[in-house]
Amino acid sequence: MLAVHLENGAVTTREVEIPRRPEGFALLRLLLAGICNTDLELQRGYYGFAGTPGHEFAAEVVEAGMPELVGRRVVGEINVACTQCEWCRKGLGRHCPNRTVLGIVNQPGAFAEFFVLPERNLHLLPEGLPMERAVFTEPLAAACEILDQVSIPPGETVAVLGDGKLGLLVALVLKAHGCRVHQFGRHPEKLRIAGAAGVDTECNPARLPTAAYDWVVEATGNPEGLRAAVAMARPRGTVVMKSTVHGTVEIDTAPAIVNELTLVGSRCGRFEAALPLLVGEAIPFERMISARFQLRDAAKAFARAAERGVLKVLLDGVA
Amino acid sequence: MLAVHLENGAVTTREVEIPRRPEGFALLRLLLAGICNTDLELQRGYYGFAGTPGHEFAAEVVEAGMPELVGRRVVGEINVACTQCEWCRKGLGRHCPNRTVLGIVNQPGAFAEFFVLPERNLHLLPEGLPMERAVFTEPLAAACEILDQVSIPPGETVAVLGDGKLGLLVALVLKAHGCRVHQFGRHPEKLRIAGAAGVDTECNPARLPTAAYDWVVEATGNPEGLRAAVAMARPRGTVVMKSTVHGTVEIDTAPAIVNELTLVGSRCGRFEAALPLLVGEAIPFERMISARFQLRDAAKAFARAAERGVLKVLLDGVA
Repeated sequence: MLAVHLENGAVTTREVEIPRRPEGFALLRLLLAGICNTDLELQRGYYGFAGTPGHEFAAEVVEAGMPELVGRRVVGEINVACTQCEWCRKGLGRHCPNRTVLGIVNQPGAFAEFFVLPERNLHLLPEGLPMERAVFTEPLAAACEILDQVSIPPGETVAVLGDGKLGLLVALVLKAHGCRVHQFGRHPEKLRIAGAAGVDTECNPARLPTAAYDWVVEATGNPEGLRAAVAMARPRGTVVMKSTVHGTVEIDTAPAIVNELTLVGSRCGRFEAALPLLVGEAIPFERMISARFQLRDAAKAFARAAERGVLKVLLDGVA
Repeated sequence: MLAVHLENGAVTTREVEIPRRPEGFALLRLLLAGICNTDLELQRGYYGFAGTPGHEFAAEVVEAGMPELVGRRVVGEINVACTQCEWCRKGLGRHCPNRTVLGIVNQPGAFAEFFVLPERNLHLLPEGLPMERAVFTEPLAAACEILDQVSIPPGETVAVLGDGKLGLLVALVLKAHGCRVHQFGRHPEKLRIAGAAGVDTECNPARLPTAAYDWVVEATGNPEGLRAAVAMARPRGTVVMKSTVHGTVEIDTAPAIVNELTLVGSRCGRFEAALPLLVGEAIPFERMISARFQLRDAAKAFARAAERGVLKVLLDGVA
């Protein structure tokens, strides 16, 4: 089968064996995958990754222990948890210390003709859902995670910093939740997507408002974002940190302490929260797709995804 | 009257006019004051301070609009709020953007024979309470603030980083609350105070435990503390930030985000929560007093307070 291989910054494709399906796992055939900023960070050397990346996908079940899964279209949670530890027993397998992570940590990823994932990780897709939407489940769940961690009442005003893929999804999820959303970004064409959904947007403001928001979500993907987010929060406000920045970030903790802010780190989310939002008009996923490549052209796809201003780049499975 | 003056790092005393008592304020005669790390930071240039410092005090009311206050012994909340703004209406005058702060921001402090503070800021002291205990109300309230912000169930294990004045009060307050407390510090003689109250202590451990605590309080007063606290927290854990460090702190946000930590900035607290703890055996305040000076010897007192290993240094009012 065809599989993408990432090593020392180079994206190649190679022919490899179809993976063996372990007990409890399903063998999946890739239908459509998405390139995430994390994939680009893996390419830059994050986690010292070497192998097949890919964790945003929609697939068809080819083989499974549960016969009712076979032939169905699915998405899947990316953390392969041990199911035995304290975290797993609390339903927080996303934090299982023994976990592998699809296409990120010790688990060959979805940028391949076939790959495996535990059956318990899979979610059946609603009939008729376009794969171009299904492929957004994972990043959408990461945006929904905010509302799982922090109770933001509908009607509240939330500032979102950043207008990349995640920033847009965050703004649109919060808007769909009933919040008033003020999004600050750098790309007029990206902000227009959020604007069309009723998000108030501001492009390259001369200065950001200070001590102005009870809720701020930092999704810029750069180290300056957190500093700005802290400055934008009102006393006793909450800053949600969505950007996994590689390396250390210098922050002035004094305002965070004097203003008694709460900073909440936020990562992957439950797919259950995301699936209902894949249907309907709330989020214009189609407008967030910048390009689509064949799996064998993964190198080109990665290059395109890394270009400034590009949103989601998709990879088609082998027909 | 005698007043301490702090300017450009120099502590002096001078004779000045007794302050005028504004409407709604009480004129207070200092009985006993404490030197706080914030006072030492003001000396180092924090806030560009010039004037009379001092915000930890016990005093006698000399003049007041409310006649029942006159002659009583009191402590007082240090934030002089406007009472009109949104924060004040929510009972959060500690965050009033128009506030002055006793001995810190535009409000002459308590290191003087006499000083003024709004009557609404005052709390009557229980009969018979020694002034050596009363003077701890303000820092004790700062320690109690943690439990106002974060709901830590009794019985939970909490790590406290730092064994300075605030670290000790935090450990002892959490112990009194019913937590199991593991305190990490650098001074055997300070840790013994907490140890005698049932806190598990560790002095200069070769390495700190990682991903080991659901609750971590950072009270080291140095920039490395926050990094260590983040590393000690378990996934979904909470780190309370008590150290106001001057300048920026470099932190690795990746673990905070990957582990979905909550970081809570924590500052001053309500005196109501602290007053009951001034009575009784839970907190051995007397053991935390390192030295006591006359107000006219404030320069010596500041020098002593800045020495390594020294806990609370007190200043007596003019007899």
